[in-house]
Amino acid sequence: MLTLPFCCHGRRRGWLLVAALALLGCLGSARAEDGYALWMRYVPVEPGIAHEYRKRLGEVVAPDQTATQRVAREELQRGLSGLLASMPRISTEGAGGHMLVLGTPESSRWIAPFRQELETLGGEGYLLRQTHVAGHDVVMVAARSDIGVLYGVFHLLRLVQTGVSLDHLEIRESPGIQLRVLNHWDDLDGHVERGYAGGSLWDWHTLPDWQDPRYTDYARANASLGINGTVLNNVNANALSLTPAYLAKAAALADVFRPYGIRVYLSARFSAPIEIGGLRTADPFDADVQRWWREKADEIYALIPDFGGFLVKANSEGQPGPQDYGRSHADGANLLGDALAPHGGVVMWRAFVYAHDVPEDRAKQAYSEFAGLDGAFRPNVLLQVKNGPIDFQPREPFHPLFGAMPRTPLMMEFQITKEYLGFATHLVYLGSLYEEALNADTHVNGEGSTVARVVDGSLDGHTLTGIAGVANIGNSRTWSGSHFDQANWYAFGRLAWNPRQSARDIAAEWAAMTFSPDSEVVRPVVEMMMASREAAVDYMTPLGLHHVMARGHHYGPGPWVDGGPRADWTSVYYHRADRNGIGFDRTRHGSNAVSQYAPAVARRFGDVARVPESLLLWFHHVPWDHRLRSGRPLWDELVHHYTRGVRQVQTMQATWDSLQGRVDAPRHRQVAAFLRIQENEAQWWRDASVAYFQSLNGRPMPDGEAPPPHPLAYYQSLQFPFAPGDGR
Amino acid sequence: MLTLPFCCHGRRRGWLLVAALALLGCLGSARAEDGYALWMRYVPVEPGIAHEYRKRLGEVVAPDQTATQRVAREELQRGLSGLLASMPRISTEGAGGHMLVLGTPESSRWIAPFRQELETLGGEGYLLRQTHVAGHDVVMVAARSDIGVLYGVFHLLRLVQTGVSLDHLEIRESPGIQLRVLNHWDDLDGHVERGYAGGSLWDWHTLPDWQDPRYTDYARANASLGINGTVLNNVNANALSLTPAYLAKAAALADVFRPYGIRVYLSARFSAPIEIGGLRTADPFDADVQRWWREKADEIYALIPDFGGFLVKANSEGQPGPQDYGRSHADGANLLGDALAPHGGVVMWRAFVYAHDVPEDRAKQAYSEFAGLDGAFRPNVLLQVKNGPIDFQPREPFHPLFGAMPRTPLMMEFQITKEYLGFATHLVYLGSLYEEALNADTHVNGEGSTVARVVDGSLDGHTLTGIAGVANIGNSRTWSGSHFDQANWYAFGRLAWNPRQSARDIAAEWAAMTFSPDSEVVRPVVEMMMASREAAVDYMTPLGLHHVMARGHHYGPGPWVDGGPRADWTSVYYHRADRNGIGFDRTRHGSNAVSQYAPAVARRFGDVARVPESLLLWFHHVPWDHRLRSGRPLWDELVHHYTRGVRQVQTMQATWDSLQGRVDAPRHRQVAAFLRIQENEAQWWRDASVAYFQSLNGRPMPDGEAPPPHPLAYYQSLQFPFAPGDGR
Repeated sequence: MLTLPFCCHGRRRGWLLVAALALLGCLGSARAEDGYALWMRYVPVEPGIAHEYRKRLGEVVAPDQTATQRVAREELQRGLSGLLASMPRISTEGAGGHMLVLGTPESSRWIAPFRQELETLGGEGYLLRQTHVAGHDVVMVAARSDIGVLYGVFHLLRLVQTGVSLDHLEIRESPGIQLRVLNHWDDLDGHVERGYAGGSLWDWHTLPDWQDPRYTDYARANASLGINGTVLNNVNANALSLTPAYLAKAAALADVFRPYGIRVYLSARFSAPIEIGGLRTADPFDADVQRWWREKADEIYALIPDFGGFLVKANSEGQPGPQDYGRSHADGANLLGDALAPHGGVVMWRAFVYAHDVPEDRAKQAYSEFAGLDGAFRPNVLLQVKNGPIDFQPREPFHPLFGAMPRTPLMMEFQITKEYLGFATHLVYLGSLYEEALNADTHVNGEGSTVARVVDGSLDGHTLTGIAGVANIGNSRTWSGSHFDQANWYAFGRLAWNPRQSARDIAAEWAAMTFSPDSEVVRPVVEMMMASREAAVDYMTPLGLHHVMARGHHYGPGPWVDGGPRADWTSVYYHRADRNGIGFDRTRHGSNAVSQYAPAVARRFGDVARVPESLLLWFHHVPWDHRLRSGRPLWDELVHHYTRGVRQVQTMQATWDSLQGRVDAPRHRQVAAFLRIQENEAQWWRDASVAYFQSLNGRPMPDGEAPPPHPLAYYQSLQFPFAPGDGR
Repeated sequence: MLTLPFCCHGRRRGWLLVAALALLGCLGSARAEDGYALWMRYVPVEPGIAHEYRKRLGEVVAPDQTATQRVAREELQRGLSGLLASMPRISTEGAGGHMLVLGTPESSRWIAPFRQELETLGGEGYLLRQTHVAGHDVVMVAARSDIGVLYGVFHLLRLVQTGVSLDHLEIRESPGIQLRVLNHWDDLDGHVERGYAGGSLWDWHTLPDWQDPRYTDYARANASLGINGTVLNNVNANALSLTPAYLAKAAALADVFRPYGIRVYLSARFSAPIEIGGLRTADPFDADVQRWWREKADEIYALIPDFGGFLVKANSEGQPGPQDYGRSHADGANLLGDALAPHGGVVMWRAFVYAHDVPEDRAKQAYSEFAGLDGAFRPNVLLQVKNGPIDFQPREPFHPLFGAMPRTPLMMEFQITKEYLGFATHLVYLGSLYEEALNADTHVNGEGSTVARVVDGSLDGHTLTGIAGVANIGNSRTWSGSHFDQANWYAFGRLAWNPRQSARDIAAEWAAMTFSPDSEVVRPVVEMMMASREAAVDYMTPLGLHHVMARGHHYGPGPWVDGGPRADWTSVYYHRADRNGIGFDRTRHGSNAVSQYAPAVARRFGDVARVPESLLLWFHHVPWDHRLRSGRPLWDELVHHYTRGVRQVQTMQATWDSLQGRVDAPRHRQVAAFLRIQENEAQWWRDASVAYFQSLNGRPMPDGEAPPPHPLAYYQSLQFPFAPGDGR
């Protein structure tokens, strides 16, 4: 019988544990690569470089007085013991020699001398430095606060995970945005609206008594990115989340998250004073309503002293709001702002509003509603604006409110969950989308007035700043429903910390940590990721098309969607295709949505010759034989894009196939299966879209393009009543 | 820096890997004890006994030609390498010496000589034997089929897990019941009706393309118990599950389960011919309807050649059925039976029916409906009968249909999920409940005519037999929502294999495998388990009370529930308490439900002096000062039981606390937290029930009993709109 090697003592041979771990894989005892560990896998680094790391990091000096200090130590211990296959020695004092020193000037005598240098770091920043202190060779993770140190620890671990040398290490980091927040659209019954990763992570039924260890891992993952806030419940809110029973549950989560620097926020239903307060009105000018919110805030802060504040969706898609009482959005937001202000809380008021009875182009309505309210909000109110004027489409122009409200802090709202981008089965890296949105130039203060500079406050001198991501996190073992969707959580977090980072760099570090730092893995994975979003745009909504998904659940193509309760919930409203042409005229000859942008931008978007072709049909209605820069007529170009999108998915498949053996089998298999789904669905999108538009324009297929294999009626007949994530 | 031991070669020292594994725990790389492994943890056995096992089991001879043969090999490899911390050598031929030999007479030359001896084992039985074959010392796992071998492998692994010596091993096993089936009440949108373990295990959206490895682990767990069938969807069925798209998904699951001997069944909605077939009727006498079901069966079997058949809930709680057309349940069942018969499928027709407009005692209605149909069913139809006449209460008398339909195969339907027993947070071991139900004596053919003998067919000479368990399985990491609820899945499976096993023995083997074979763990854990069901009866429904839970979701006490759509969905219907007395008179002076039992049983149940006190209020309405055997008046006895239930939970807590350090910390913590919830809720049950009944009878608290801390109105005011598992 084969007896396994047994263990005896040796020095600097910890790397042999790699072999032992591999063997343990056969025993079914090693951790399965099921995605649960996210980018914090902490698997052993190459033996060649482990040596240097062990020398510099094997002796850790770190305080252990506060909860945050303890989690920093624990994370370091977990990370280094895994990465270096050996347990670092940890003390609070340090004996000299090579040391990794953690702390603040207050918590560490080794860091105290650097107090002045740390002053400019801000409350969450940190300094990583390899230096000499009193003759000792030291790597230090220094900050002004425990949280800064924790962030620094995660950064250091990232360096080790990606194989960066620590010689001459000198990194100063501070977050570019103050509030870096996830929005969970989680209902109290465990359903997640637009969730494709299982049910809600929050087990409301067993809270507050049982705090699932997964809550801690959630906090670790967020802290590793610098995410410092989480809105627990759906913006389509239930007032019950503000009742004592649910506040106790939220408080239990806040207790778990607090050591990781994460504040809890709640979505507040504007009519809560009626529904759970017994009042007859929720009018913001009513004294009883004002008192009710003040007392509610007091009650919350008694349970959650660091409660972040309220997120509010009001007078939008059927939600109650101040306009029900003839008051403005500012009146509503200020009502809550006043209640929270004594406690330091903020209101994140969503600008995603559009009225049922307003015939105005939906793309214009948020601007029309809010631009005039600039300056009318309390100082603790932020306006949360989606990246584009419609709704998280594969591609949109930037939202015209960015730059249009200089006296109001505008939060960016990105969607991390892929409601309109293939759910969890399509590999679509959103880093590219976020980057594109943040780098968009509003031109409001001349060139370089980027959306990023609006959001980080630098353009208009705001110190209260924020960014929100609609989470793609559920109780799926992979957290995000797929392995590659973890990258979107990651990219959101990294860009929230520093909105000027490159999506490609972020993809590379994510791939290195998540799969392998081997460049033979990272390079092709990054290639796939960087091409993926444009592929999705191509096979779903090329050339500026938008909102042509199936009704309600948005699963699959539905360019024929028409009728129903409101025009702007149909596809035909947006593409306006007929026998002669296609596209939404938003120039001054049409809805004039272009006028909401700064003149330089408006001129470009409004000129069919200058508009980026990627937004052509967003802003212009053009004939089917309109010539594009390629020389092809529009119809041919459109089909070309659809087909190109499908091909790109096939290229991703080939790339992924080539990684077999370099990526662990369990994850390789799942990604391969999902890529097959994506290929089928990309083809479906292409065929259904082509069949539909062809039914309108009667044009032949362009040369070399295969006709759709089914008649249009077939695609129109497909029904998916249980597609996940639907609203209620 | 502490460098970990590195590995070099040695013999028979694999047990040192235990230490290595412990160290790896610190590295965060070892498998967390999160419950996912169920009772198949395969952690190393004591070094002292590992030696014998290694000698006997280190050399495995096993065929590898069929899928089932391969999964048997894999399981053995996974199990032994974990348990013995060393990888067995596996071949198909065997070199002699000590050998573990797997196979059938056809698949193994070592087993071929035992052909005759195996004849009596049946298709799923197996023989485990330590013997000598041609001079070699052999442990054999022999069977007539690959599935029998797989079952034998799991049995062998169980022996090793529980530390049983293999010397003189001689075990012959065959299942006592033919169809051993889980019923999943899983909706197509992922909701699980009466599910307390997260959402559905089936990710319909990604099926059939993606087959989650968890499906395989589900199949392993079931095969380890001998469960050989699974009904994938809710008995409150959606006809869409019979459409081509969903059949393809079911077929993909069937492909995963097939090597493990598990057949897929579907719940069929009786009106499917209308809803998805385009017919105007579902009348079983209609020729088009008959053809539709025949063609549907053909379509299913083309995709799933070993499809098990249909489970049907008809004319019950709003479901459509044959009575909608003036036909009988037999007419309905036979319609489907005829469609399935050519393919060898069966119909499992549920007897859980009660009519909206029938004023008869609900406990009587199933018998009234079905007893007269005995003999009217096709040979491939089984009648699936819940263990008691109401609905999975903490305690019920056995269902009077058992024994009353000798010409019809009666399946037992147990509920594994704890709809009425505290959901997943209460520790209630159901093995005791199942045992009590199976051992109940119907007396229909004289003493010893137990329910078990009805179900296993021996009483009436049926060969088609079955038992169903309503699954407590969801996508929770623990599978069952808690660690101890895994024991209920386990106990169901073990009793399905052999309905004469003792609940205590089953608890002991489960505890040994799940926590530790250390008797210092097993003994107290078994104590807790064996006392737990009676504790729940005490704090919820003592002395024969039933169906007094809160309305709809059944979470918590609701003895005051009254009104609503139907009387038999209220509590007052069942307890009938007033100023003078309490209990449902089911004697001949009342509803005469006792008359549905055999005379000997009827006499006992109908006599207030002879009825078991545990069923007193089930069968009798008695005054509050009725004296019980304890000498106490009923009111005092009732309060005494409530309080005793709470105390028993406290005892369980103390026992569990004493196991700290002997049970791994993650699971110890979760169980402890859940026990705290259980204690709080047991107290809540006791206090609310006492407050309510006291409001009716106006009696003082018995001596030494604390009054409820809140007024009745408080308990009545509690609302839990999002309690999990509610029906739709």
